[in-house]
Amino acid sequence: MPSYSAPTRDMQFVLHEVLDISHSETPGYADLDRDFTGAILEEAGKIASDVLAPLNTAGDTQGCRLENGMVITPEGFKPAFDALRAGGWPAIDGDAAYGGQGLPYIMSCATGEMFVSANMALNIYQGLTHGAVSAIRAHGTDAQKATYLPRLVTCDWTGTMNLTEPQCGTDLGQVRTKAEPQDEGSYAITGQKIFISAGDHDLAENVIHLVLARAPGGGEGTRGLSLFIVPKVLVNQDGSLGARNAVSVGKIEHKMGIHGNATCVMNYDGAKGWLLGDLHKGMRAMFTMMNEARLSVGLQGYAVAEAAYQGAAAYATERLQGRAVTGPENPDGPADPLIVHPDIRRSLMSQKAFVEGARMLTFWGASLVDRAQRADDTQAEGLISLLTPVIKGFLTDKGFEATVNAQQVFGGHGYIEEQGMSQFVRDARITMIYEGANGVQALDLVGRKLAADGGKPLMGFFEMVKAFIRENEADAALKSAFLDPLKRASKDLQAAAVFFMSEGMKNPNAALAGSHDFLHLFGHVCMGLMWARAARAAHAALKSGDGDTAFYQAKIMTGRYYMARELPATAFHLARITSGADPVMALPAESF
Amino acid sequence: MPSYSAPTRDMQFVLHEVLDISHSETPGYADLDRDFTGAILEEAGKIASDVLAPLNTAGDTQGCRLENGMVITPEGFKPAFDALRAGGWPAIDGDAAYGGQGLPYIMSCATGEMFVSANMALNIYQGLTHGAVSAIRAHGTDAQKATYLPRLVTCDWTGTMNLTEPQCGTDLGQVRTKAEPQDEGSYAITGQKIFISAGDHDLAENVIHLVLARAPGGGEGTRGLSLFIVPKVLVNQDGSLGARNAVSVGKIEHKMGIHGNATCVMNYDGAKGWLLGDLHKGMRAMFTMMNEARLSVGLQGYAVAEAAYQGAAAYATERLQGRAVTGPENPDGPADPLIVHPDIRRSLMSQKAFVEGARMLTFWGASLVDRAQRADDTQAEGLISLLTPVIKGFLTDKGFEATVNAQQVFGGHGYIEEQGMSQFVRDARITMIYEGANGVQALDLVGRKLAADGGKPLMGFFEMVKAFIRENEADAALKSAFLDPLKRASKDLQAAAVFFMSEGMKNPNAALAGSHDFLHLFGHVCMGLMWARAARAAHAALKSGDGDTAFYQAKIMTGRYYMARELPATAFHLARITSGADPVMALPAESF
Repeated sequence: MPSYSAPTRDMQFVLHEVLDISHSETPGYADLDRDFTGAILEEAGKIASDVLAPLNTAGDTQGCRLENGMVITPEGFKPAFDALRAGGWPAIDGDAAYGGQGLPYIMSCATGEMFVSANMALNIYQGLTHGAVSAIRAHGTDAQKATYLPRLVTCDWTGTMNLTEPQCGTDLGQVRTKAEPQDEGSYAITGQKIFISAGDHDLAENVIHLVLARAPGGGEGTRGLSLFIVPKVLVNQDGSLGARNAVSVGKIEHKMGIHGNATCVMNYDGAKGWLLGDLHKGMRAMFTMMNEARLSVGLQGYAVAEAAYQGAAAYATERLQGRAVTGPENPDGPADPLIVHPDIRRSLMSQKAFVEGARMLTFWGASLVDRAQRADDTQAEGLISLLTPVIKGFLTDKGFEATVNAQQVFGGHGYIEEQGMSQFVRDARITMIYEGANGVQALDLVGRKLAADGGKPLMGFFEMVKAFIRENEADAALKSAFLDPLKRASKDLQAAAVFFMSEGMKNPNAALAGSHDFLHLFGHVCMGLMWARAARAAHAALKSGDGDTAFYQAKIMTGRYYMARELPATAFHLARITSGADPVMALPAESF
Repeated sequence: MPSYSAPTRDMQFVLHEVLDISHSETPGYADLDRDFTGAILEEAGKIASDVLAPLNTAGDTQGCRLENGMVITPEGFKPAFDALRAGGWPAIDGDAAYGGQGLPYIMSCATGEMFVSANMALNIYQGLTHGAVSAIRAHGTDAQKATYLPRLVTCDWTGTMNLTEPQCGTDLGQVRTKAEPQDEGSYAITGQKIFISAGDHDLAENVIHLVLARAPGGGEGTRGLSLFIVPKVLVNQDGSLGARNAVSVGKIEHKMGIHGNATCVMNYDGAKGWLLGDLHKGMRAMFTMMNEARLSVGLQGYAVAEAAYQGAAAYATERLQGRAVTGPENPDGPADPLIVHPDIRRSLMSQKAFVEGARMLTFWGASLVDRAQRADDTQAEGLISLLTPVIKGFLTDKGFEATVNAQQVFGGHGYIEEQGMSQFVRDARITMIYEGANGVQALDLVGRKLAADGGKPLMGFFEMVKAFIRENEADAALKSAFLDPLKRASKDLQAAAVFFMSEGMKNPNAALAGSHDFLHLFGHVCMGLMWARAARAAHAALKSGDGDTAFYQAKIMTGRYYMARELPATAFHLARITSGADPVMALPAESF
């Protein structure tokens, strides 16, 4: 069973040396000084390592079971969830008015990364609650806020997102679940929802479902959809719990991974629901949840890879197998450790460079969310809206790949369930699928986000990269190893965007056939920018003689690896994109 | 549960139109005319679809169990294995002198692909027997041949390969299992072997283990190793079965996939064994098994991807979700089929182009094996020796990727075990690991095969590519879409080889840090060559007006996809390789 050690040092580097959050003008950031965030991360790291990680394997082995219509979570999950709640972790960035701690979202990301690395399945029980809180805060009535938010913010109750039905996942226009208005102002919700993460469980007294359904008069397609609050247990006027609502678990899905989390079929049989937000504007309200959920799935993508990387690095250091080609490095032992072999190193470096780069990208994204929400900064909002599909799609595709690489380091032992590496791979696999499969992220990016607001966010991104290069070009330590590759990669991204603009006009398939590659191209440029910023910060620290020389040198070397070995992928993606739609679309459907 | 339909038409295309086997000079190939191979493939396809495929899911769900020291395989496996045996399938390329059908190896590959696609776990029970037969044929005494081959060739008994021990996988020099000479000429074998595929089961009366062990006087490391025949049940002089040997199953491993195959811990407690081949030359005897096993694992890599692709293509055609961006294609339905979406097509095209290309590459490889063995052609032998790590490593890395892509087409449904896509992914994962993890394949390729025989096989490969381009350059239908990309890719491969030669002299890590990329670069060039040959054959057939126009046009379009969208990866791999060892090796081991 792999152990987990929280990467507190690296998080502090990202927060304070790369993003310099405590000198940011974003309201609330001034309080986030190094000592304060250090203390928070330290505590979160402890609970992750000591409480959550030890339950991860058992959660996978036992899974969840349905007993008398009630979901029972794996042994130990309830006390662990209680411990999270007692520590105030789910409420870390919750509104203080509802019992939250009122810290910025970036701190929820940093601590959340640890919880996901340690036990992804358990963390999902609180993950979607966050989205439900945002939706109710943004669209709820005062009464709804008063009834639900204090319990949801603290995770005394948890929330879910009910969109998918058997006949429709992405294509929500096909939703059939009905909402019929009742005399007293509520709606009767009837229908079946599937793939509901944390749909039911024994970790909280109540589960608040946000359900997309069709109320009369809205017409067909997504325009006719509204969002409803449907509690598992009805809430009395005084806030106490009343009768069970007519919602039940049809079954728990038997999945490839995240066995510790109950993915449920939910049956609504005239369940009482209350409209959240405007009638027939359900998609808008739902997107509030969804965008946030997408960022946190991107985070899951690299957080599981971090845990897998830790396992692989430890194994490569301990397992003695073969000899270094340049001569024995452990001459007194029966063999050298795996890590002497260049191909094992290649794999470890790719994992390490990915995870650390992804952490920077995600925290930067979180800082944009904070800026957008706390300072009403529309530029930040435009940028994070553009980056959301990139963070979700790229970090989960690459996170899965990194996890597979980590498993590979173990050779045959990686394939044996007891080692725990298989679980990481099986768990990570879902991140490419849920909250919008990655193909949908690519479509969102190319089909909607690129041209959003007249292309201003995209132009803003390019300007930011250019400005960074301009500002640092005189620095010889950065020039050839970081800035030049970043410039090349950014040019590839621009060329791809130009291709879409010119060709996409004539044939929309020309752009969409390249959407997957564009998302990856964009992801690499973001990572390149992050690594260039990290290198600048590390060089500055080395110059100032901070003392932690090994850390900063490792940071620069890891960044050099990314720029030299991963970033050149942009040219490949560009070549694929500019080959156009024909190679992809030419074959008649019957020929598959 | 996915159904399986044997790609007989495509196999016939590869055998007769790409490789033109019946006009080859390889002994035995003249009999392989189109009708004959068609009849064989038809029959094999039936047993694969009707008998093996329906058991695949149950095999995964039930797995194997150990009862009173005996492995019990999943329900239905025994009658299915009997049916394979009754049809003579395991013996298809077995020596006629021992009850085999004496057909070339290429026919074993073609039919084997079907059996693997339909039920990989079940097929592994016969897979390693093939290797055991080869080892005994090559290194056994006449008595050993007479005792074991007639039963192994027909799979009345099955064979295993016992190399790995808890402390050593690849690094066989650390093997501890002991072989002590006994008075009557046998050896007493004592030790523990792990990860033994098909180590025990109820499908055959006897299991013949080939065990690598250390006999006195051989010294340390691999030089001291010898190979022994250790039957599960001792064989009497008259060929009848005698007493149980002192070999037992310690446990069945709990694996990520191929649950239907028993991967065993085998305990040898002074078991009777007989030396196979020369004393202290066990590695040589073992490599006879291993090279063959590596080719067949490469085959598994794409065979599982074929099955997964069939599932994805069917799902994409049936599942209605969203509308084509160019206007509804199924206006009377609630939505268009998934296949209208460019990103779904991109995924399907990449799977299809991979599987069909991989089939050509594997069959071509098999034809080289036949040529080497049946015509003692040393050039063919050198070439297949060079290509073996490429076929194993590239086809399994890419096969796994293709299987993951196929699963992704299903969205959330792909993550649910009942759909069967998760099983394909979990099963395919082992192919990257066993019979030498892919990092070991890359090391074998760069560290041994490139320079083997003074680099002649590599030069021969380049000459072959050049000759093909030269011969067809006048053909406008091939020039820009196939030959030009192939020429560019081949140049990338040459540049990488030159880099290794010049830099590797100074620093062996410079070559080894690029070994993974070199293997992939080589794999792409092989696939490019195959697709160019396929395009030539398809154009020729279209010109001759054969009639099956849709098939040949699809073949050309699929080839164009590969050349335009996949082959440009060679430049990326070259860029990584020429970045040298430093980005990979610079970081001190403590910094991981």
